[in-house]
Formats: sequence, structure tokens, C-alpha cells
Amino acid sequence: MKNLLIAMLCFLAAFPVWAQENYKTISKEDSVKIYIGKTTYEVKTYTEKHKADKPKNIIFMIGDGMGVSAVHAGLTANGGQLFLNNFKQLGFITTNSASDYVTDSAAGGTALSSGYKTYNGAIGVDTDTVAQPSVLEKAEAKGLATGLVSSSAITHATPASFIAHQPSRNHYEAIAGDFLKTDIDVFIGGGYKHFTDRKDGRNLTTELEGKGYTVLQDMNKIDQFKSGKLAGLTAPEHNPRVDERGDMLPRATGKAIELLSQSKKGFFLMVEGSQIDWAGHQNNTIYLVEEVLDFDRCIAKALEFASKDRETLVVVTADHETGGLGINNGAYDKKRVNGEFTTGGHTGVMVPVFAFGPGAEHFTGIMDNTDIPKKMMELLGL
Amino acid sequence: MKNLLIAMLCFLAAFPVWAQENYKTISKEDSVKIYIGKTTYEVKTYTEKHKADKPKNIIFMIGDGMGVSAVHAGLTANGGQLFLNNFKQLGFITTNSASDYVTDSAAGGTALSSGYKTYNGAIGVDTDTVAQPSVLEKAEAKGLATGLVSSSAITHATPASFIAHQPSRNHYEAIAGDFLKTDIDVFIGGGYKHFTDRKDGRNLTTELEGKGYTVLQDMNKIDQFKSGKLAGLTAPEHNPRVDERGDMLPRATGKAIELLSQSKKGFFLMVEGSQIDWAGHQNNTIYLVEEVLDFDRCIAKALEFASKDRETLVVVTADHETGGLGINNGAYDKKRVNGEFTTGGHTGVMVPVFAFGPGAEHFTGIMDNTDIPKKMMELLGL
Repeated sequence: MKNLLIAMLCFLAAFPVWAQENYKTISKEDSVKIYIGKTTYEVKTYTEKHKADKPKNIIFMIGDGMGVSAVHAGLTANGGQLFLNNFKQLGFITTNSASDYVTDSAAGGTALSSGYKTYNGAIGVDTDTVAQPSVLEKAEAKGLATGLVSSSAITHATPASFIAHQPSRNHYEAIAGDFLKTDIDVFIGGGYKHFTDRKDGRNLTTELEGKGYTVLQDMNKIDQFKSGKLAGLTAPEHNPRVDERGDMLPRATGKAIELLSQSKKGFFLMVEGSQIDWAGHQNNTIYLVEEVLDFDRCIAKALEFASKDRETLVVVTADHETGGLGINNGAYDKKRVNGEFTTGGHTGVMVPVFAFGPGAEHFTGIMDNTDIPKKMMELLGL
Repeated sequence: MKNLLIAMLCFLAAFPVWAQENYKTISKEDSVKIYIGKTTYEVKTYTEKHKADKPKNIIFMIGDGMGVSAVHAGLTANGGQLFLNNFKQLGFITTNSASDYVTDSAAGGTALSSGYKTYNGAIGVDTDTVAQPSVLEKAEAKGLATGLVSSSAITHATPASFIAHQPSRNHYEAIAGDFLKTDIDVFIGGGYKHFTDRKDGRNLTTELEGKGYTVLQDMNKIDQFKSGKLAGLTAPEHNPRVDERGDMLPRATGKAIELLSQSKKGFFLMVEGSQIDWAGHQNNTIYLVEEVLDFDRCIAKALEFASKDRETLVVVTADHETGGLGINNGAYDKKRVNGEFTTGGHTGVMVPVFAFGPGAEHFTGIMDNTDIPKKMMELLGL
């Protein structure tokens, strides 16, 4: 019966989906295989010159589900050039969790935030459900400015792992509550309703305002915000996919950097491209490519700042690969990507690490995901 | 009709193949998905200390079809450690040929040997079928000792690209003839019959002996060979797969290094792990893992020499990925790898580059396959 189902799914998947010139006319609901882009964006070249061996600031960029094939899909779709091409220090991380060879985003996020392997589903707690501090929390405690940006709800597994400590990723309201416990300076993402529409009756946006935050839901208003503590909650739950949300994520990244860089003691910022993963789960190459290119434009914001600042380390990686994506065919000149997938879930393959700026040379070779925050903590003296 | 066929193939592929404790009892002829290893080999740690900025010797190791997932399959199968873990300078190369987004091994080999993009099928010639010199030929011309080692026939696409110039990879006899045109010092691989059983009636082994080569077919005799020019032709056509050929490839690698390192002017050696690709074409995870681990043991031979010598650059990469391998599940402790594939052909995804030794820092970031021999030529002053 299971085999019959798989055969039927394969049959459907093998049904030819011919890409059209305007790819947006292809149904977004279907699992689609071929991306054809019309235009490319210009990729600038940034040179690395450091003021010192160690960074004052770290921008940590996590492409959720962004394995090597996803990067390559984006590379092809943009005609062979990404902002990622500016990175010269590369490595890999193994991504297995304490409970599973194939991690979920909660255990993956916790490994990347705290340096602890934990069970799938855990947010900022170890295998004994004991809270373990994240690099963001340690940075905040030391007086650095801190921020989180994501295209999902800000309470979703990856950003949550940097500020919350809960035994399950599904405790969204408890995770939202944890945003009140750390003096994070800026966070921008979806998840408004986890702060307001709560079983415990608390209105966390009011509480955030009481703690000095400006709470904004409109990206245009967020754009105009010039200094102070900001809670940007741009959607009731998750933000929509990029063709609906537009350039929300690069704008939020730029705004967070602008606000955090006012700190004299330095800053730590984590930016997540959340929906690369969701596209992989859908086995949807078009959606995946769009999200990778959007995330690459966020990387551009980080590089633009870091190349001028010369005291900022930018590290780009993923929590795991999603979809078992193979790039079965494509064309750089036509910006065409023919993807095929081996699963609707995550896979166990090691994922790439790209580092730029002072300290980048520590993020090379085959590492473990837990090594990344440990190295960041050491470089920031946390 | 085509869709029906694909659906039927998918149905067959979805038929559960449960791995058994002794994986060798699983039919090698079938497309099999799960590798379960019993033992692991010890991975030593080598430190990099350079005598100078530039290398005297280069060992270039090409895992045919060895994408990131193949490396990870090997990593898992050996309990989380490979000799590749010693490499700290990492990058990627794009692999497209002049004619196709998805390269074949001939155009891939030619790009890696000469720095020229060419059409699929071309051996050492550019898109106008004009011969272009390889890094091996340039090294030989400058007086360095040179060698080729492979687990396929030595006349097969990848090694052929380093010494032959033919419009088609299928011209095996002409390719064998090209081995007489360059004073290569050592070559070890299969393909005996392309030298002896020829339409033109020439016996190239006699001609090789006339040029001062010792021609040997037995690995035990090759092991005993201590100095001079060696033509090791260990099989009539291709060598068998690793569970039949044993440690032929690591032994041949060690012997080639031993012979070539007698050169005072330095040496260039290319070693190919040919059958990682063939395993990928078969969508056979067990075969693939065995070949990756065998190739890693060849890398061990290179590292062992380079770490003592301190004047040798070791570069490991692939010509392309094969199979669109996804690592859908696995277990480091059980050395278990559950692979799934998206194709029986090659894919277009960028492949990893690992470098160790003087000059390794030049092989980082996202590069093109043609950059690799150009950098090698520059480092060797060719």
C-alpha cells in the first residue's frame, strides 16, 4: 500500500511541468520543479580589511534548510553570481541532534545558539531540559546590543532558540513570554498573535512598551524608526512567502544593523531566511530559489555594513538541509534550475559555512554545528 | 508512456531493501539504499607546517562524482571521521562544461587538467578540438616528475584528460597512444588491452619498454618496484570494484608518491577515485560508500607524505556530482547511511574542494573548475 502510494506520488511528480516564461503563472500550490528567472540582480564585490584579529560585531545568518544544493540553485538562478561569492573562508558543519541523525530546526537552532546538542523539538534547553544560555544572551549580558530577524514568526524554532528556553518548540506563547526576559534590543518577524492573543490573558506588546520598546507592525513604520528598542511584529503568525512579503527580510536586516550598530560596545544579530526550509518541504524549486535569492540580498546588507565597518564578522550557514535537493539540470544564461528532491523532510548531510571579516579563518574545515556558537563566544570574549 | 515507465521505476525503487548486518550479502547487482558498516578505520591528525609559501609538489586527488553528499556518506560510514577532516582550506567549484550545464567526466577532467571549458566528451582539447596542455604536461616539460593513478582504466576520461588530446573520450586506443607522447614517469590503473589489443597492430607495452618503462600488471610486483619509470596496468579494462580489487588504489597512490618523490625538482601526481561515480550511476549507496572510504585512504597516503615533506600541496575535489544523492537518514554510531538518489546521471551542483599544504589558501571560496589547474600552474611556476 505504501509502495503504491509512493509510486502514485512519483507518477504525479513525473508529470511534466513545463516552466513558463513568467514563472509566477505556475500554481504555487503544486510541487513544481523548474525555476526560470527573467532578471538577475547585480552582485557587488566586497574586500576584506580588518581593523583587528577579533570582531566587535557578529552577524549570524541562518538559511533554514539551505544545503549546498539550495545555494547552487540560487547561484544558477542569478546567472552564476551571489553575494555569497564574496566569502573566502568556507567550511561544513555536521547537523545531527542528540536524539536524531536528522535534526529538526529546534535542536539545530539550539546547537547553533548555545553549543549544546539536544533532542529534536527542544528550544534553548539541553537533553535534561536545563536552560543553556545562547550567544545572544551572553552578548546582551556583556552589554552588547542584540537582535533577531526572521521571515517566519519570531517565535518559530530558529529565532526562538536564541532567546527562549522551552522543552518544546510548540510552546509559542511561552516562547513569546521569554522575549521579555532578555533585554534584546531589536527583533523583527511575524508572530504578533503569540504576544497578544494568549491563553494567559497577558498582552505582551503592552508589557514590551512598558519596558521601553516601540512595537510596530508595519514595515514602512519600521523603516522610519531611527533609534531605541524595537519589537517589529510584521504578521499575525508567519510572514507570507517572498513573492507576497516583498523585500521585508532584507529591509528588516538593514534596519536591525542600522539600529544595533549605534551601540558603542558592539552587537550580535541573528537573521534567519526561514522559508528556504518550507520550500524544501514542499519540494517546490521555484519557491526555494526565490527564498534563497531573498536571503542572499540579506547577506548583501550584512556585507555592505561589514566591508565598511571592518570590525564585523559575518557567518552564514544552515541548521540542516531540507528536501534532499538534486540539481538535475539547469542553465546559467537562462537562470533555469531543474530541481528534484529525495524527501519532503530534512536530510542529514553536512551544510556549508561561509565566513567574512575578522575571525573568519576560524570557521573552516569540517566542524560540528555546536562549534559555531562556541567560536563566536570566544571571539566576542563571552 | 514515459511517465508510466518512471512510475514503474519509482515503484521498484520504493520496494523496501532492508539492510542486513553483513552488507555484502545484499546483491551487488541491485540498486541498494542502505549501507551498514561494521568497523571503522582510525583517522590520524596531521598538522600543516610549510617550508615555503609555494609548493614543490602537488598531489591532485579527484573523486569522480564525489559531491558533498558522497563525502558525508563516507563520513557517516566511518563513524564521523575521515582523513578529509584534516583539511582546513575549503571551497567549491562550479562544474558546467562549455556545452552543458551538467558536465561529463571528459569535459570535467579537461577543465581540471588544462583550465579550458570544453564540450562534453572532449579529452584535453578545447571547443575547437585544439589540444590544450595540461598541468601534468607543463610540469613534465619543466622537469618535474609526473604521475597518474586511477581505479578505472588509465585511459578513461579523467586520467586521459591529463595526458591525451582526443576529440572523443571513446577513442581509447588513441588515448593509450598519447601516453607515449609525454615522458610521464609513473602511471597505474587498468586498461592493459588498450595498449596491446589494438586495431593498428601496435603493442604499446613493447614501445613503453623501449622508452625505458617497466610494464607491470601485478600489484605485488608494483609494490616491489623501487625506482625508474613505471607503467602499471593492473586490469585488462577497468579495475573491479573495491570489494574485489582490495587496497589497489591506496597502494598505487603510495607507490606513485614513493617513486615520484625521488625527483629533486618536485612532482605532480593526479589520483582518481573513479568508481564513486559508477556507484552513483547505479544509485548504489553501499558501493558508493565503499569507494569513498577507499578514496579517503588514498587521501591518507597523500597526507602522510605531505605532513612530513612540508613542500607538498594536496588538493581534493570532484569533476561533478553523480546521482543527486540525498542522505535521508543514517547513524554515526551504527555507521549506517540511508541514501536516496534523484537521477542515474550526473547533476550540476557545485562540488567541494579541500586543500592542505603550502598554497592551500588559494583554493577557497566559490570558484570555477577551470580555476583549479590555473592556480596549480601558477603555484608551480608553469
